[in-house]
Amino acid sequence: MKAFAVWTLAAATATLCVPAAAQFAKAEDAIKYRQSALFVMGQHFGRLGAMANGKAPFDAKLAQENADVVASIARLPWAGFAPGTDKGALTKAKPAVWAEQARFKEHADKLEAETVKLAAAAKTGSLDNLKAAFGPAAQTCKACHDDYRSK
Amino acid sequence: MKAFAVWTLAAATATLCVPAAAQFAKAEDAIKYRQSALFVMGQHFGRLGAMANGKAPFDAKLAQENADVVASIARLPWAGFAPGTDKGALTKAKPAVWAEQARFKEHADKLEAETVKLAAAAKTGSLDNLKAAFGPAAQTCKACHDDYRSK
Repeated sequence: MKAFAVWTLAAATATLCVPAAAQFAKAEDAIKYRQSALFVMGQHFGRLGAMANGKAPFDAKLAQENADVVASIARLPWAGFAPGTDKGALTKAKPAVWAEQARFKEHADKLEAETVKLAAAAKTGSLDNLKAAFGPAAQTCKACHDDYRSK
Repeated sequence: MKAFAVWTLAAATATLCVPAAAQFAKAEDAIKYRQSALFVMGQHFGRLGAMANGKAPFDAKLAQENADVVASIARLPWAGFAPGTDKGALTKAKPAVWAEQARFKEHADKLEAETVKLAAAAKTGSLDNLKAAFGPAAQTCKACHDDYRSK
């Protein structure tokens, strides 16, 4: 019975610690992964922003392509914030990411939802629709950065 | 007529140089972009490799998810190799990338095609199909790295 309890505890501990280990060889890889995914997404998001803000000519096809990339990459970075990845490489992620996991996940979910709406808006080929969807999506980036990313 | 010729030349030169400038604010961003996209792709590709090589248990759903990410990201890095992005940040890309653009593009196209096949194979839910498609896809990574990436 005692042996079983110890085994159960060990298994539970392993489960808690496994995500990063299971998906990434080391914390450094998880950190690089989330930074990479966010950077790629940011580049494509920035192109949509330039169109939405009139700093680049609106091109419906390009907008759709960029919005599709944003929506598909928006699902990725969060696995890179697994337990144990608060250090291991240079990171701007605040400890709050791991201290408030449920709230952090809400932010991630919100971004994913807004980027799906953004892609749907871009698909209509209307600049007005793009503008209307871009603001709320950009706001989700900002809200999460304000709370969880160091300056 | 002379003015027109000059203008045409200027426009042609601009077209040749525009890709990086149009898509990226600076060469450094293009370099970071391609490295980021390749790193994210590599992480997901590695998970498929672990399954294909028996180093991780085969999970059909996970395989499909990872293969879908690989196929969608495989289209991205190449824009980051635009003219003028051979320097501006640490890069392992050899000058041959820009000296042999057509041949480099063939490699990129081949990778994209193989990752589409890999995703189709993963979708069948068969480990044998995954194994059969993984080898050729991995070979396209290696062939391009051998010729165009410094050690």
